[in-house]
Amino acid sequence: VVVPVKDVHAMVPRSGLLTLRSVGIAGIVKPLAIQRPERVVTVTARFQVGVDLPAQRKGSDLSRNAELLAEVVDETLVHPVESLEAACALVAEELLKRHSYATHATVSASAEYLRRRGLVPERRSYEEYLLLAEATGDRRLDGGMDLHRSVGGEAVGMTACPCAMETAREMLTKEFPLLDDPSMASFPIVSHNQRNRTRVLFDLPPGIVVEAEEILDAIEGAQSSPTYAILKRRDEAQVVLNAHRNPKFVEDVLRDLLLGLPARFPTLPDELTVRIRTTSEESIHKYDVVAAHEATLGELRARTTA
Amino acid sequence: VVVPVKDVHAMVPRSGLLTLRSVGIAGIVKPLAIQRPERVVTVTARFQVGVDLPAQRKGSDLSRNAELLAEVVDETLVHPVESLEAACALVAEELLKRHSYATHATVSASAEYLRRRGLVPERRSYEEYLLLAEATGDRRLDGGMDLHRSVGGEAVGMTACPCAMETAREMLTKEFPLLDDPSMASFPIVSHNQRNRTRVLFDLPPGIVVEAEEILDAIEGAQSSPTYAILKRRDEAQVVLNAHRNPKFVEDVLRDLLLGLPARFPTLPDELTVRIRTTSEESIHKYDVVAAHEATLGELRARTTA
Amino acid sequence: VVVPVKDVHAMVPRSGLLTLRSVGIAGIVKPLAIQRPERVVTVTARFQVGVDLPAQRKGSDLSRNAELLAEVVDETLVHPVESLEAACALVAEELLKRHSYATHATVSASAEYLRRRGLVPERRSYEEYLLLAEATGDRRLDGGMDLHRSVGGEAVGMTACPCAMETAREMLTKEFPLLDDPSMASFPIVSHNQRNRTRVLFDLPPGIVVEAEEILDAIEGAQSSPTYAILKRRDEAQVVLNAHRNPKFVEDVLRDLLLGLPARFPTLPDELTVRIRTTSEESIHKYDVVAAHEATLGELRARTTA
Amino acid sequence: VVVPVKDVHAMVPRSGLLTLRSVGIAGIVKPLAIQRPERVVTVTARFQVGVDLPAQRKGSDLSRNAELLAEVVDETLVHPVESLEAACALVAEELLKRHSYATHATVSASAEYLRRRGLVPERRSYEEYLLLAEATGDRRLDGGMDLHRSVGGEAVGMTACPCAMETAREMLTKEFPLLDDPSMASFPIVSHNQRNRTRVLFDLPPGIVVEAEEILDAIEGAQSSPTYAILKRRDEAQVVLNAHRNPKFVEDVLRDLLLGLPARFPTLPDELTVRIRTTSEESIHKYDVVAAHEATLGELRARTTA
Repeated sequence: VVVPVKDVHAMVPRSGLLTLRSVGIAGIVKPLAIQRPERVVTVTARFQVGVDLPAQRKGSDLSRNAELLAEVVDETLVHPVESLEAACALVAEELLKRHSYATHATVSASAEYLRRRGLVPERRSYEEYLLLAEATGDRRLDGGMDLHRSVGGEAVGMTACPCAMETAREMLTKEFPLLDDPSMASFPIVSHNQRNRTRVLFDLPPGIVVEAEEILDAIEGAQSSPTYAILKRRDEAQVVLNAHRNPKFVEDVLRDLLLGLPARFPTLPDELTVRIRTTSEESIHKYDVVAAHEATLGELRARTTA
Repeated sequence: VVVPVKDVHAMVPRSGLLTLRSVGIAGIVKPLAIQRPERVVTVTARFQVGVDLPAQRKGSDLSRNAELLAEVVDETLVHPVESLEAACALVAEELLKRHSYATHATVSASAEYLRRRGLVPERRSYEEYLLLAEATGDRRLDGGMDLHRSVGGEAVGMTACPCAMETAREMLTKEFPLLDDPSMASFPIVSHNQRNRTRVLFDLPPGIVVEAEEILDAIEGAQSSPTYAILKRRDEAQVVLNAHRNPKFVEDVLRDLLLGLPARFPTLPDELTVRIRTTSEESIHKYDVVAAHEATLGELRARTTA
Repeated sequence: VVVPVKDVHAMVPRSGLLTLRSVGIAGIVKPLAIQRPERVVTVTARFQVGVDLPAQRKGSDLSRNAELLAEVVDETLVHPVESLEAACALVAEELLKRHSYATHATVSASAEYLRRRGLVPERRSYEEYLLLAEATGDRRLDGGMDLHRSVGGEAVGMTACPCAMETAREMLTKEFPLLDDPSMASFPIVSHNQRNRTRVLFDLPPGIVVEAEEILDAIEGAQSSPTYAILKRRDEAQVVLNAHRNPKFVEDVLRDLLLGLPARFPTLPDELTVRIRTTSEESIHKYDVVAAHEATLGELRARTTA
Repeated sequence: VVVPVKDVHAMVPRSGLLTLRSVGIAGIVKPLAIQRPERVVTVTARFQVGVDLPAQRKGSDLSRNAELLAEVVDETLVHPVESLEAACALVAEELLKRHSYATHATVSASAEYLRRRGLVPERRSYEEYLLLAEATGDRRLDGGMDLHRSVGGEAVGMTACPCAMETAREMLTKEFPLLDDPSMASFPIVSHNQRNRTRVLFDLPPGIVVEAEEILDAIEGAQSSPTYAILKRRDEAQVVLNAHRNPKFVEDVLRDLLLGLPARFPTLPDELTVRIRTTSEESIHKYDVVAAHEATLGELRARTTA
């Protein structure tokens, strides 16, 4: 005979009645098989999940979270999921199913993601990126659920500062008058350059799908230059020249990325919201420079078609 | 003669016109002298600051941020500031003064903070806490500024799980019938216990002051037990017993902390908002359990006086 | 015509002639396909590699490091390597081949590793571990190379403190005289328990192979209890009881792990050296407790057969 | 009457007899008052301490570690200690005094340290550095102790790559023939530049004192340029020019730092050992470049006077 174990979580809390916004688990790591166009990729995803907790209930049934994560993930190892955000949406849906007392579920996940990239085709190798995804689930009054997904990623590239470059040009012209020669007009001038780390999330309207790969491409397209693991001597100088011919503040990275989205994603709906945060690990300072913005595609279209 | 250096930041951005929400610096570290009731304490504060950037301006004048931080901080070394959040408010004010194009400024700061604590007075020593503060500044149409401050902190203590304890009691009673004896009713039963890390922020209405020390006390009061650096053999067992006689889920820590605030801060106004996040570094899992909530004191008062 | 680019690395350093012990790259991330008995596992490995630099040479050819890592790794995606340490040895060998001026190469790698584990078979799921590996290569006077590999890993489990348990027993016996009844002799008493993080490396003599899985099993066997992602109510109490019936200091984890190796690995040679570091993330303190040791299997055998 | 609590730590370990190299605590944070030439500075130091454990003893008396750390530190708040390494030596001495069974003690500490620095005197502000210190204590057969101290620190500065600069010069000369003009010989050419993080430890012979400040100055003197919190437009370009006129591999930073020590510290003894690790957070790669070396001042003197 099984001892009837007391359900402490379902007890009424002694401290008083207060609905809590979110109770869940964080830092749980799972393998996840994702179906890419040409092959199945297995990533190691780190999840955070939570649901709200009604006032009359002492605790959230947290073992259900680990259980459902395991089941969703195990299923992907047999039937790969289409994306990290699709996995998050499945998890959000299961959270609401198994926490019958909950009305709102949140899921976020990140995963290291390796892409084969190179300055030249013969020196391509795996480069490190981050996939990011979120999902929320809301229980409707009719018993159904509203699910929302976000998809994004983080890419590390390089920026060269346009301001130090201009000042250096003025200072160098005093010392090297030849710099004033018209033939030197486009000569690339020294500046400080550094790692730029940019993170983007697209909050997707229902039914809309965006490839994380395309978001990562958009980030790299907005930095002064992507960076690469393998750079032979001439490649290295080429990346340096590319970056200095395309100098950018973090403000420029942010604006160029945002204002380039309408052209890059012409079919996405106006109500899609984009969140971006870009960080410059300044070579001339011990601190970082950071810029952030959030906008709908509609707002960005209004800015670019004006 | 000084060469007139080109003001690249003030140029019109080529990528298009888009106001950006926040541009600033992060991870800049400064010493800060704070006037405590009995003495001046110098903390090492880590700041993040930012202002919005108008559409017509390519870049934010970031050197002003480092300059004003240095000036505010240097001033505190002569005239100690009253608190970390007061320093944040000064910085927010200066941000709006020196970035004349900006309408909104945000500042956040954290600092390691050592408090002398002990289970018994003769074994008190310094324990590690975190001070947290934020400030925002908004330029009004009349040219004035609205400043808002937040104050808080983080304290690490201990929780013992009430659920595993109940289940273990049931399982042990099968094996040890004496446990059913009435004299054993309050006998503390084994459970899993672990570090609990709780972070609180009070968003202060204008003119209201709250001591971070009192917030740290409130956090420790809501955990199963505070923890200590020096514990002799008997102290150690006492802390273990204290925690097991006061078992708590993170949900309990969160509710007890929230619902205890009206009594602990009776004179604070209803509109003050509290944000809390509490994390249990589970001893029986490799992942963490997390709970979070946000409420006004008014909402909490309604719950506790009902 | 290709411009003959100046080989700055091969120049004589201006600062003076000094052989440097190690120059290399760190934090480079690569996918790696490992052949496990039953299937191929792809891990994301983080490498650090380095070689010595002769006094007459200004710089190390670092692009070769990224190139050879890519080639070794690409090859494993076609022909899976047998282990992370085998990959490290291949990399060490290539480092000496491609840095003809170097006499010593070092490689270390770590990779998140997920194993399917559970307290009961029906609730098994992936648990997070770390694989660790190292390799060194030394060029012999006859032009050959001596390669050494190390293999190991890190596992997080749980410990319950035997000391607080004994003191609590004494203190509780005063209050609950029934605890003195002979039938209560083996009753599990409350103590503090916490995450234990233990890291082991086996420095392998040539030709010797050890499965990282077996090292991870050895670590978990020495903790008070392994921990699990999915624990239903009764499982949770069972893990708590298991841990309290097997209380351990970090000193015990370290000694039990070391002294259990001769029986667990009876065929490994005496000269194999083991390095262990075990950390207790104390629930009753804000700081950690750490113990470390290094011994040969021969020394451990002398201790266990005495 | 006090219950005689069982001394579990002093029991004979059941797992078998094995002396352990080190048992202690890590991550314990303490305020420490240090007497600088002109004023008392209070730093927040993070300590790790350990002693060996004899085979016949189950556990180390860890509460003594926290106790003695508190006492040593409390004493410095009344009578400031001369340095972080002096505090470490005091702690090592106390470890051997209070762990009568131990023969060897190790202590290490780190502390954030703020120094007022600037490119120009009128824009000086606090910059972030790290102080590092270690001490070991060995019990002699005559009952005395041998204490050894190490002192050092970490400074973040900037390097510009000499190789990419040379290659870029060759590539640019094709496109801009004026670059070949003799007047342009010393014209600074673009390269990649980045944060350089260099860590140095001096293992001091008995009786020898070295100021950590001088070690931090030596580090900054070996980088392409120090970096600063406040840089107005022209300062920024000046730092960029300084760095590009002093391009350095990490190998150069390491050699220049090492080979500069004899002139910088002429009176220090030959047997003093220096350990250095320097890291370049490459702007053109997602990974870091690292170089490390260890040498005695005597070896370095032989290299510089040859």
